[in-house]
Amino acid sequence: MDLVEALPFGKPTVAAASPAWHINVIRMNALKIFSDSPLSPADKQVLLDGSAPHEILLPKKAVTSVLGTPEPDPLFAEADVAFGQPDLESIARSERLKWIQVSSAGFTRYDTPEFRALVKERGIVVTNSSSVYAEACADHVFAFMLAHSRRLPQALASQAANASPEWFQLRGDSIPLRGQSVVILGFGAIATLLVKLLAPFEMKITAMRRSPRGDEGVPVVTPEQLPASLATADHVINILPDNAASRNFINAACLAQMKPGVVFHNIGRGTTVDQDYLLAALRSGQVGAAWLDVTEPEPLPADHPLRAEPNCFITPHIAGGHRGESQTLIRHFLRNLKNYTAGAELLDRIM
Amino acid sequence: MDLVEALPFGKPTVAAASPAWHINVIRMNALKIFSDSPLSPADKQVLLDGSAPHEILLPKKAVTSVLGTPEPDPLFAEADVAFGQPDLESIARSERLKWIQVSSAGFTRYDTPEFRALVKERGIVVTNSSSVYAEACADHVFAFMLAHSRRLPQALASQAANASPEWFQLRGDSIPLRGQSVVILGFGAIATLLVKLLAPFEMKITAMRRSPRGDEGVPVVTPEQLPASLATADHVINILPDNAASRNFINAACLAQMKPGVVFHNIGRGTTVDQDYLLAALRSGQVGAAWLDVTEPEPLPADHPLRAEPNCFITPHIAGGHRGESQTLIRHFLRNLKNYTAGAELLDRIM
Repeated sequence: MDLVEALPFGKPTVAAASPAWHINVIRMNALKIFSDSPLSPADKQVLLDGSAPHEILLPKKAVTSVLGTPEPDPLFAEADVAFGQPDLESIARSERLKWIQVSSAGFTRYDTPEFRALVKERGIVVTNSSSVYAEACADHVFAFMLAHSRRLPQALASQAANASPEWFQLRGDSIPLRGQSVVILGFGAIATLLVKLLAPFEMKITAMRRSPRGDEGVPVVTPEQLPASLATADHVINILPDNAASRNFINAACLAQMKPGVVFHNIGRGTTVDQDYLLAALRSGQVGAAWLDVTEPEPLPADHPLRAEPNCFITPHIAGGHRGESQTLIRHFLRNLKNYTAGAELLDRIM
Repeated sequence: MDLVEALPFGKPTVAAASPAWHINVIRMNALKIFSDSPLSPADKQVLLDGSAPHEILLPKKAVTSVLGTPEPDPLFAEADVAFGQPDLESIARSERLKWIQVSSAGFTRYDTPEFRALVKERGIVVTNSSSVYAEACADHVFAFMLAHSRRLPQALASQAANASPEWFQLRGDSIPLRGQSVVILGFGAIATLLVKLLAPFEMKITAMRRSPRGDEGVPVVTPEQLPASLATADHVINILPDNAASRNFINAACLAQMKPGVVFHNIGRGTTVDQDYLLAALRSGQVGAAWLDVTEPEPLPADHPLRAEPNCFITPHIAGGHRGESQTLIRHFLRNLKNYTAGAELLDRIM
């Protein structure tokens, strides 16, 4: 879709040939931007300063979690643009909305045939914030891989004496990443960055993608071709989002296709894994270790058996977190706002 | 020194111009190699097979630690070559010894003016095994850096709920390595590899080296120029070996020169750090966190106050450890044995 056509105020009144037309558009057509992201006073100032002359509409109650359900807000009906986690009902009711920027990388609640049909029909553009979290997510799963390679959890808990049996065991259990095989499930911004981070280790990397494009820079397989790759992978990295096709993708059959002793990492969504089978695979040794940033539910109950597994390592859904995160998020939106008003291509467009 | 001259059997009897001379030398002059490394039956076989036609002399009691003191063995007097951790007394007494390959990266007990004078006078070549451990050591300190960046110890211990204050804190405490500054103390094989691993993070790397060579690939400062670099470094990586010049190098003055909140890593030797001052610096916040693979003594007593510091993370001197380590060590020796008998340059030569 032509983005200029999608502008909520229609075609600019100045001839498009004039290089200054979009400046005139901005001056003449201030957008109303509904933002339900939780904002500190400093964040709010960055958003207000950066979005002028457009108007920011703030709801009474900010949404604090991408997993929660936001309450509809009457102000939403006036918005041309929504930035945050807008609720489906408000979007469906709106007669003005032309662009939604989701303030997360995941967009499960919007990832349905009904929603896709709605935004297509209404000419609503949808972007997400995957660029904001991609570096931190790539770092996090890379930290998992290296921590596993160097047996950090075990080593940090050990007071083994030099030359003791425990000490030799710890040393011998450290398996260098160099030359190992990796399969990445889901190839997007995070995987692209991860491949760059892994480059010095000269690993054999394969990615699984539903629709290979040919520009991935690593061998790509489709879900149908995956079993052969899983059979030889030392590490499996799951970056799959939650949607109808990915739910329980890592099921009993998939786990059985993996190389015995595989190290399984998940920074996608907990719903993509059948946790009962993962637990069984950890107990049997089919999976050598699991490093999970996401689980189902979150947080996993304190007495969940995965928490008691010695080779299961869980962080509380923080892979995308980083210092200054809320400002990175706002600046990403402001960059896209500039693109939007200029009729340029939007970053992280998902629909 | 010309290595051919250093051969224990003197000049080859066949004309050196003949391309086959060194093969004849090997056939005619089997070397006696004293090996006191701890060997499994499989390791021993690799050493015996790989060193034929030379003779391996095995002591009654294998040395299990580079930090222990080996007992003199009467067999040593017959050895042309020593591979392992030979004791100083046996070396001094030997009339045949021409080459020592130390089976560790550290070589503290040999790193004295007296020993250097002795081997120079006797024409003994000394090599170590730093290549064997360099990759694992670089991986280990890199794992420290990434685990710190992603707050892995805290995150793995947390069951924080999405959007809870603890969760926001954890996310905000994760500081990306990208663009941060690093000072590496001691520039050798490990630092060279570490610089390659860090490349994708585009960090500002400075190395300290007593005698800069100009081929380091990163800016190098001398100890005299170090304070200015320390003042801006987010991470200080200590890879200094133990010797008279390095002992307590990280003292009160050095710690005070560092940027407040610095992350200090040590995979060199524990003796290079004044631990009382490190403890005080951790408590005051001058040092934000310490990641130590080496301490003084080792292991650090269970009740040592550093173990109780929440921002002090200790692994038990395993940085160089890796699966198949003893065979890597033997293959490194065999590669050097081939070079030695061919009169070629030896790897990891230290004296």
